[in-house]
Amino acid sequence: MLVVMRKDANQKEIEIVCKEIKEMGLAAHPIPGAQRTAIGITGNKNMVREDKIMLLPGVKEIIHVTQPYKLVGREFKPDDTVIETSNVKIGGKKIVIIAGPCAVESREQIIETAFAVKEAGAHILRGGAFKPRTSPYDFQGMGEEGLELLAEAREKTGLLIVTETIDPDNVEIVEKYADILQIGARNMHSFSLLRRVGRSKRPVLLKRGLAATIKEFLMAAEYIMSEGNPNIILCERGVRTFGDHTRFTLDLSAIPVIKELTHLPIIADPSHATGKWQNVTSMARASIAAGADGVMIEVHPHPEFALSDGSQSLTPENFNKLIKEMKIITEAIGKEM
Amino acid sequence: MLVVMRKDANQKEIEIVCKEIKEMGLAAHPIPGAQRTAIGITGNKNMVREDKIMLLPGVKEIIHVTQPYKLVGREFKPDDTVIETSNVKIGGKKIVIIAGPCAVESREQIIETAFAVKEAGAHILRGGAFKPRTSPYDFQGMGEEGLELLAEAREKTGLLIVTETIDPDNVEIVEKYADILQIGARNMHSFSLLRRVGRSKRPVLLKRGLAATIKEFLMAAEYIMSEGNPNIILCERGVRTFGDHTRFTLDLSAIPVIKELTHLPIIADPSHATGKWQNVTSMARASIAAGADGVMIEVHPHPEFALSDGSQSLTPENFNKLIKEMKIITEAIGKEM
Amino acid sequence: MLVVMRKDANQKEIEIVCKEIKEMGLAAHPIPGAQRTAIGITGNKNMVREDKIMLLPGVKEIIHVTQPYKLVGREFKPDDTVIETSNVKIGGKKIVIIAGPCAVESREQIIETAFAVKEAGAHILRGGAFKPRTSPYDFQGMGEEGLELLAEAREKTGLLIVTETIDPDNVEIVEKYADILQIGARNMHSFSLLRRVGRSKRPVLLKRGLAATIKEFLMAAEYIMSEGNPNIILCERGVRTFGDHTRFTLDLSAIPVIKELTHLPIIADPSHATGKWQNVTSMARASIAAGADGVMIEVHPHPEFALSDGSQSLTPENFNKLIKEMKIITEAIGKEM
Amino acid sequence: MLVVMRKDANQKEIEIVCKEIKEMGLAAHPIPGAQRTAIGITGNKNMVREDKIMLLPGVKEIIHVTQPYKLVGREFKPDDTVIETSNVKIGGKKIVIIAGPCAVESREQIIETAFAVKEAGAHILRGGAFKPRTSPYDFQGMGEEGLELLAEAREKTGLLIVTETIDPDNVEIVEKYADILQIGARNMHSFSLLRRVGRSKRPVLLKRGLAATIKEFLMAAEYIMSEGNPNIILCERGVRTFGDHTRFTLDLSAIPVIKELTHLPIIADPSHATGKWQNVTSMARASIAAGADGVMIEVHPHPEFALSDGSQSLTPENFNKLIKEMKIITEAIGKEM
Repeated sequence: MLVVMRKDANQKEIEIVCKEIKEMGLAAHPIPGAQRTAIGITGNKNMVREDKIMLLPGVKEIIHVTQPYKLVGREFKPDDTVIETSNVKIGGKKIVIIAGPCAVESREQIIETAFAVKEAGAHILRGGAFKPRTSPYDFQGMGEEGLELLAEAREKTGLLIVTETIDPDNVEIVEKYADILQIGARNMHSFSLLRRVGRSKRPVLLKRGLAATIKEFLMAAEYIMSEGNPNIILCERGVRTFGDHTRFTLDLSAIPVIKELTHLPIIADPSHATGKWQNVTSMARASIAAGADGVMIEVHPHPEFALSDGSQSLTPENFNKLIKEMKIITEAIGKEM
Repeated sequence: MLVVMRKDANQKEIEIVCKEIKEMGLAAHPIPGAQRTAIGITGNKNMVREDKIMLLPGVKEIIHVTQPYKLVGREFKPDDTVIETSNVKIGGKKIVIIAGPCAVESREQIIETAFAVKEAGAHILRGGAFKPRTSPYDFQGMGEEGLELLAEAREKTGLLIVTETIDPDNVEIVEKYADILQIGARNMHSFSLLRRVGRSKRPVLLKRGLAATIKEFLMAAEYIMSEGNPNIILCERGVRTFGDHTRFTLDLSAIPVIKELTHLPIIADPSHATGKWQNVTSMARASIAAGADGVMIEVHPHPEFALSDGSQSLTPENFNKLIKEMKIITEAIGKEM
Repeated sequence: MLVVMRKDANQKEIEIVCKEIKEMGLAAHPIPGAQRTAIGITGNKNMVREDKIMLLPGVKEIIHVTQPYKLVGREFKPDDTVIETSNVKIGGKKIVIIAGPCAVESREQIIETAFAVKEAGAHILRGGAFKPRTSPYDFQGMGEEGLELLAEAREKTGLLIVTETIDPDNVEIVEKYADILQIGARNMHSFSLLRRVGRSKRPVLLKRGLAATIKEFLMAAEYIMSEGNPNIILCERGVRTFGDHTRFTLDLSAIPVIKELTHLPIIADPSHATGKWQNVTSMARASIAAGADGVMIEVHPHPEFALSDGSQSLTPENFNKLIKEMKIITEAIGKEM
Repeated sequence: MLVVMRKDANQKEIEIVCKEIKEMGLAAHPIPGAQRTAIGITGNKNMVREDKIMLLPGVKEIIHVTQPYKLVGREFKPDDTVIETSNVKIGGKKIVIIAGPCAVESREQIIETAFAVKEAGAHILRGGAFKPRTSPYDFQGMGEEGLELLAEAREKTGLLIVTETIDPDNVEIVEKYADILQIGARNMHSFSLLRRVGRSKRPVLLKRGLAATIKEFLMAAEYIMSEGNPNIILCERGVRTFGDHTRFTLDLSAIPVIKELTHLPIIADPSHATGKWQNVTSMARASIAAGADGVMIEVHPHPEFALSDGSQSLTPENFNKLIKEMKIITEAIGKEM
C-alpha cells in the first residue's frame, strides 16, 4: 500500500503519517520523488486503518499496490532511481562501465587490469576475492588479500570497486573494502544474505538467478530494499535454457520489461552469458541498444593464464575496441559514456 | 568436403572438377566467391578419391569440413551471401525492413498497411495468407484470396512480398504470388517442405524452431540448400524457455554465433518473440546492434481489431517511430537503411 | 459446446439434433458413451441457437466447454477411449507394448526383431521406413521397400505395424501398409499432415513436440479428431530442457495431467527420451507406474550396427528382461500385459 | 585419485598410506567397502607421488578419477551408501517415507500430522521452521518455536525429524533439534552453507537446484562430503522448464542416472514438483518404479488452511491411500516399506 502525499506536503506532515503507520504495527518507507513524496507501507500482520490515514494533513491518496513487490515497483516510485557514487551516477543518462577480471589473482594482474580498463573508459573495477565455485577443488579466490589488492587498485586509479560477497558472515569484511557489494546469480535466492546486504550502507549489484523469473528477481531486490537499502543495481547475466551455443542465454528482453516494472537501474553482463569473448562486443552493444544502464565486462591482461573464465575475458586491447563500439551506440540513443 | 580452386582457375577447369566428382557418384556444388571458387562435395555413399581430384588442373587444396552442415557453413563459403532482390540486397551493408500484419484480413487492411510501412521505410511487406494455428478452430487465413491481395499491394506500392507456405503441396500456389517464401518456426523440421522450397527459384525466409539448437537451425537451411536453392534468409524469432515475461525468449546471442558459422544473412523478429508491442522497439534496436541484417515487424492499422496477434502489432504511427530509432543505430554501426 | 442427450434418448432423436446443428451452419459430432450420448458442436462462424436445441426431444442439457480443445476433452467425453485393433485394445486395462528398431534396415533385421519382440510379449512392431532426420546427409529410411518388409514381418508374426508418415502426400502409401500411422515429435505442428491423418481410417500415434505444452499437444490431437478420426494414441517422448544427462527430459507428470484432461490413451517412449539403453528399463517401469497405457521401446538385434539411434536400442535379450520387470509393475497396479 | 587397497590389507597399512598422503600436502579419505578399502586423495595444489604410494604395503592399485566429483562418485566407492538412523536405513532395500506439512504452523497441526503419517507408515516427519520464501512479506516460519514443536512430535511419535536450515549461522540451532538437516533447492549453490553442514554430525538431505545439471548437483554433494560428512541423501524435486502443467518438471530420469554415477541414496519429492495433490500419488509410484530410495510427501490435516503450499498437500486420508499404492509397487520391485 502506498500513501501519496500532496505536492506541497512538508517534512513534518510526512513524519506524522509515518508515525501513524508505525503505531498501527506496520513499517513506513518514505520515498522522495521529483514532484512529491510517497510513503510505502509494508508488514502484513496488521490491518491498515486507511480512513485514519486519509484524515492526516498532506495526504493526497492511498494506492493499493497489486504487484507482489512493493518498494521496488514503479507504482511505488515512478521516477528512475539514480545511484550516486563518487565516480558515476548509475541509472541516469550515463552508461556505467564495470570491467575487470573474473577473480583477483595477483597484485600485478589486478593493478595492470585496473589501469588498462580505467584508460579505456571504465568507471568501476570488478574482481572476485571470494569466488563461489561449482567444485570444492577449484580456486576459491584470494579472500581478504584479494580485497586489499582491490583497495590498492582503487587508490592508484580512482576506480570504484565492486566485488562479490558470498554469505551473511562474509558481508562485513567485503563492506570494509568494496564500494559496491555484488550478489552472484547462485545466491539470488539466499534470503539471509539479501537481508544482510539490505542493512548495509553500500549499494548492491544483484545478479539474476539462472532460472529466476522477472518476478522472482524483483522479489529478491525487494528483500534487500525492505531492510532499508534503496541502492540496488539489477544485472541480467543470462539464464539457463536448452541452448548450447552460449554458456547461458542472455535475455535482453528482460531489460525493457524490468524498466517498465521497476525504478531500479539494470545492467547486463555479456561476458558470463556468452562465455566466449568473441561474442561479448556484439552483446554489449545490443544491451545498450535494449536500454541497459551499463555493462559488466570481464577483462584480463592474459586470458590464456586466467585461473577462471579465461575464454570469456577480453584482452585490454579488445576491451578498448569494445568501448569505442559501445560509445557509438550510447551516443546514438542520446546517452553518455 | 570442399575443393578450393586456385584464384586463376577458369570456368573450364571448374567444370572438369565437377564432372570428376559426379563420376565418383557424388554431387558437386560450385560456390563462386569474391576471390576464388570452391566446390562442395556432398553425398556420403561413395568414397572421395582425393588423390585423383588433387591432380586436376586449377585445384589448390581439399578441405575436410568438420561441421555437420556443409553448404551453409563459412568453411564452405567464407564470403557473406548477399541475396539480391529487385528492391533491396539482403545480407550486405543495408538493413532490410520487413513489415506488415500477422495475417491478411481484408483488402482495406493490407493496402492501408502496405502504404503506411512503405512510407515509413520498409522494403518488404509481410502478411500471412495460410496461417498455421495452434487451434483448428482459429482463423486459418484467407488462402489464395489473401495472396491476390498481397500481389495487389505489391503492384500499388512496389514493396516485395514475403508470406508463409505451410506444406509441400502449398508451395506452388504461394510461389505464384510471393517474392520470398516463408517457412514458419513450427515447420522448421518439416523436411519435405524444406526440400520442396529448396527446389524453388524464390528466396526462402527460414524461421528458427521454438526449441531448435543453432546446429539444427543450420541443418534445416542445409536441407534447402542441398536441393539447389542458395538464397536463404535465417530468422531468429525467440525460443521457448521457462521465462514468462515475454511470449518467447529472443536469443540475440544467436546472431553473432550464426554470423560466425554461416555465410547466410540473419534477421530478427522481435514482434513474435516479445508478444507485446511496447517491447518491440527496444528489441529491434538491440537486434541491429547485435549484428542482424534486418528485422521483421508486425504492423496493423488497427491492432485492437486484428484477427491474430494484435497485442504484438505496432500501429503505423509507432512503426514510424521505431524506424527512426532503428535508423540511428543502423548508421551508428556503419550500415544503411 | 456440448449437447448432452438423456439416457433414454433414441438414435432418431440424436439424428434430429445433429440435423438441426448442421442447419445452423455448424458441425455435429455424436459421441456415444457408456450411459448416454453427447453431441459436440464445432465451427465458430455461426451462432448456436441454444433455445431451439433445448426444445428438441431427448436433449438433457447444453454444456459450454471452456477448454480450447473440444472433441479430445474429458468434458466432451468422460469415458476413456479404448482403441480396438485386431490384436490389442489400447487405452483399457491392458498395457500395450510397441517395440522394434528405430529404422527398418534390411529384411533380416526387421524379421529377426519382429520374432524376438513377439516372443517377449510385444503387441505391435515399430520401425521407420520414412525417417525425418536432422541432416539431409543421414540415412533417410528405405521408403516403400521398408513398408513392404514391415508388412512381411506382420504376416509372419501377427504383430500389428506402426510406422511414421512424414507429410500429407506420404500418408497414402503408409496407410497402404501400416496398421497405425505415427506422427513424429517434429511434425506435431504440421497441421496439414494432422488434418490428412484425421481423414484416415487408421488409428494415429501422435508424439508430443519437443517444446509443446500440454495444451498444444491436445490441440494437435484436436486437429486430427476434428477431421473425423477418433482413434488417437498420445505419446510422451521427452521434452527439451537444459538437462544434459538424457537426450530429452521424459516428462512423466504429463501422464496423470493428460489422463485428467482427455479421454485419449497415452503411452510413453523412454528410448528416445533417455537416449541410452541402460536407463530405458527404469523409465519404462516408471511410465507404467505413472499411469501410461503402454510403452514404445527401441529394440535392435545388433545395436552396435544400427544405422540410427543404436545407443538407445535394447538387444532382444535385454528387452526380454524389461518385459518381465514391466509385467511385475503392471500386475501390481491391477492392469494386464 | 583413488588408492585401492588389497582385500587383505589391515588397518595399520591403511593408516600408513593416509599418513604418506598427508605428508605430500594432500587430504586422505578412507572409504571402507564391503570387500576392500579405498582411499580418496583430494587437494590439487600438490603433486601426488604415485610411485612412492605404490611401494607401500597393502596397496593394490591407483585409479585416476576422471569425473569432476570424487568422494561422491561410484568410481570412488562402488557400494551403495546406506545411512543408518535409529529408525530406518536410507539407501538400502527399504523405501523411506518422509511426510509432513510444508511448514510447522502450530502445536496442534504438527502433532496431529505426526500421528497421522506415523500411523500410515511414514518413518520421518518433515516440517519447515525456517522457510525460504520468494517474498519477504510471506510467512517465514515459526523459527526455534517450530523446532521445539518438531522435537515434541518426535518424542510423542518416535518419528525422526528433517527440517530445513537456511544459512551457516542457522545450522547450529537446527542441528540441536533435527535428526536430518535439509538444504533447499534454492540453497543448493550456497557453498558456505554446504561446507557448514559438511562439518555437522547429522545426515544431510540435499535438494537439487531448479536449474542444476546432474554434475552440479553431485558437486554440491561433494562440497558437503569433502568437509567430512558422508551421510548425504539426494532429492530430485523437479526442475524449471517451459512446462506449465506442473509447478516444476519432475525429472525422474535423473534417478537411474544418479544411481549409476554415485553411491549416495536418492529420493524424490513429487509434492513440490507437481504442485497439485491430485498428481502426487502417480508420481510417487513412478519415483519408486524408477528406482528411488524413498519419497518426501507433503501432508497437512487441513490443506485448505495451510499457510503455504496447501494445493500440493495431501490430507492424512489421501496419504494413507498413497502409502498403500506405493507399497504395492515397492514389493513388486523386491523392496520393502
